[in-house]
Amino acid sequence: MTNQSTPIIKQYVALIVLEKLDNSFDSIEQIAQKLIIGLDLHVVNEMSHSFDPEGITLAYILSESHLLIHTWPEMGIIHIDLVTCSYKSKEDFENSLNKALSEKNIKSLEIKAVDF
Amino acid sequence: MTNQSTPIIKQYVALIVLEKLDNSFDSIEQIAQKLIIGLDLHVVNEMSHSFDPEGITLAYILSESHLLIHTWPEMGIIHIDLVTCSYKSKEDFENSLNKALSEKNIKSLEIKAVDF
Repeated sequence: MTNQSTPIIKQYVALIVLEKLDNSFDSIEQIAQKLIIGLDLHVVNEMSHSFDPEGITLAYILSESHLLIHTWPEMGIIHIDLVTCSYKSKEDFENSLNKALSEKNIKSLEIKAVDF
Repeated sequence: MTNQSTPIIKQYVALIVLEKLDNSFDSIEQIAQKLIIGLDLHVVNEMSHSFDPEGITLAYILSESHLLIHTWPEMGIIHIDLVTCSYKSKEDFENSLNKALSEKNIKSLEIKAVDF
């Protein structure tokens, strides 16, 4: 329903399975930072939470909307949710994601676009 | 791709247009709180950001994943993004949303489910 009376809202969700997920905070934050730089996003606030026994969530409020990353290390899974009001295509997201994960051993990577 | 080797990940995104959006922090937080209670969600961390000149973002990390709310008051728009690892159906989300917005004048409400 994007038209002159609505904002541009692009949302992409990625479900990634890695052969082996380094679930350290630094490693997950590095993926986030590579995405933020690669997609030219602008962070205005951020927080995180480490779950017991494992799993990390990183949340960024962007001037463009939000970026959320969750991990399920026991299954090698990373879930990435990007909502942006800038003109980013699914290909832009996919390219930045592949660059951010270039040193990881990807088992599978699926991306869904949410369109209204 | 939900099976025994992956967690339950349910994601619902709502785009709501109101006749007139009360963009006060309290009003938007009240909608969030009604959703959190209605869907029996559990907040482990939260943050917010007020944009200049308008627009509010509320972000909640949940023990179930996340809830994000963005507003574009100039267009009467609320965007709600829920990711949960609990067994919530689209109908659960829709019902809680309608209750949370029961005192608002809804122009349109669309919900998308993100399925892998």
